[in-house]
Amino acid sequence: MSHIYIYSPSSAVRDRKAARRGIARLKALGHEVEIDEDAFATHMRFAGDDATRLAAIHRACASGADIALITRGGYGLTRLLPQIRTKAVARAVERGTHFVGLSDFTAFQGAVMASTGATTWAGPALGEDFGVEGDADEIMLACFDDLALGQAEGSGWQLPRSEARDRLLHTRGTLWGGNLSVLTSLLGTPYMPQPQAGILFLEDVHEHPYRVERMLTQLLHAGVLARQKAILLGQFTNYRLAPHDKGYKLQTVVDWLRAQVKKVPVFTNLPFGHVTTKVLLPVGSEVELAVEGRDALIVWGHRH
Amino acid sequence: MSHIYIYSPSSAVRDRKAARRGIARLKALGHEVEIDEDAFATHMRFAGDDATRLAAIHRACASGADIALITRGGYGLTRLLPQIRTKAVARAVERGTHFVGLSDFTAFQGAVMASTGATTWAGPALGEDFGVEGDADEIMLACFDDLALGQAEGSGWQLPRSEARDRLLHTRGTLWGGNLSVLTSLLGTPYMPQPQAGILFLEDVHEHPYRVERMLTQLLHAGVLARQKAILLGQFTNYRLAPHDKGYKLQTVVDWLRAQVKKVPVFTNLPFGHVTTKVLLPVGSEVELAVEGRDALIVWGHRH
Repeated sequence: MSHIYIYSPSSAVRDRKAARRGIARLKALGHEVEIDEDAFATHMRFAGDDATRLAAIHRACASGADIALITRGGYGLTRLLPQIRTKAVARAVERGTHFVGLSDFTAFQGAVMASTGATTWAGPALGEDFGVEGDADEIMLACFDDLALGQAEGSGWQLPRSEARDRLLHTRGTLWGGNLSVLTSLLGTPYMPQPQAGILFLEDVHEHPYRVERMLTQLLHAGVLARQKAILLGQFTNYRLAPHDKGYKLQTVVDWLRAQVKKVPVFTNLPFGHVTTKVLLPVGSEVELAVEGRDALIVWGHRH
Repeated sequence: MSHIYIYSPSSAVRDRKAARRGIARLKALGHEVEIDEDAFATHMRFAGDDATRLAAIHRACASGADIALITRGGYGLTRLLPQIRTKAVARAVERGTHFVGLSDFTAFQGAVMASTGATTWAGPALGEDFGVEGDADEIMLACFDDLALGQAEGSGWQLPRSEARDRLLHTRGTLWGGNLSVLTSLLGTPYMPQPQAGILFLEDVHEHPYRVERMLTQLLHAGVLARQKAILLGQFTNYRLAPHDKGYKLQTVVDWLRAQVKKVPVFTNLPFGHVTTKVLLPVGSEVELAVEGRDALIVWGHRH
């Protein structure tokens, strides 16, 4: 049983029913759920104005919770970055608070990692993941449970047949990444992490493959991709191809990427993104990546 | 009467009728029109594969034309940037070739400016501007005519009433910019111009204001905006607001931008972007910006 602090650093919660279902589910799982006073605030498209959302983030830092969980992503963190007290976040992490989220939350995670090196968690959000009608995803729940119990040690998944390795690939690096659009929007700013031996994971939603390619091109030309030990592509979802694409598709982009970074292995199918089945990933942590046959495994070892 | 070279560095021409209308119009205006051999090539969504488009660009450089005009924008230049011989572009510019285009062409313009300082022109494309059914826009035609005749000296427009100045604002700087999405996709790469005293102009299409804001935030956090003498916002068009925006709109972003860069004047309504009425702007040139009352004027002086 963990103490979970729910707060809203980005867009306003519009589906309150889902948020309430999520809270009820976390309680039913045995957790103590604390809800930030402005978790349901609204200011235009945001969960309160900038000062409101900043205060919520800093209350999450001071909460002493085991897990600080965002209600949802959306948009709103990027513009707050200069005002976030990342040292307070790092101190909270040291005291045992796991900051968990995804999507717009990538900006927070990048800024924290770039300025303090502290580990935060790419993982679920309250509404979309815990607030679903019916059963929540078992893998997501199991990963979250591992984190809550302090037993999270790694995540595995199966690669497409075409990416299977005859020989064992084994490498180490700093795991980082998240939403491609949000991460790319940190390039050139002080909030972009710059691990020298990274294992970079990426996902996105509502982005046409040509836009995915344009963002990957930016990371390529900025020298970011060449510094990675491996690139892990999660789920790219909910985009629409057009008739004039004429065969250009996501796989075209993956093939192109591989041709650009011949020395860096690119693996797909990581169960992370704007999808139901998602694992939790420690952003900023040293991890091992092992690939044997179609089995890929990220291990970050015992955290206790 | 000018020699105009038509080529396709980005997306494939899909509306061939519009392209043919554009060619006919340029000829009717008295120009000699030369069409690149691969102007109508297609490879998936591109106007030919990378090697084809690169060769077309370099043929445009060698053409000796007065004006090298793109058929259209779209996507495709970003991934070519490392292979473009920008010195050959700069030599062509010295010999008198004006490279004209917009949208995806911003990437080309940025790379040329960053590596050589040569001036290229933000302006029309063949299909969308010269290929319209009925009359082409008079202002666009007049600006293009001025360029063709070597008489282009400046562009003026009227500011919204709220931006009118009691006193004369007069400043100088290096004019640069273009499409916000494409320009932002150069950040952190060697292809991003870094003028120390810039007059930055921006436009975009199909981008929700929150995405415009996220890109402006990136330019802000990267220190780009603070280095400008002025920021000129062109036309931001064809996006769709959502019910959950709750009053958040493009003007919200403009207001927010002004609050972030208090020392840099931000003017709107520049007639440039994905719109019919567009002026031509010399990217990479030293210009003067004068604002008096509601009248704004960019002057780049005599070029002969």
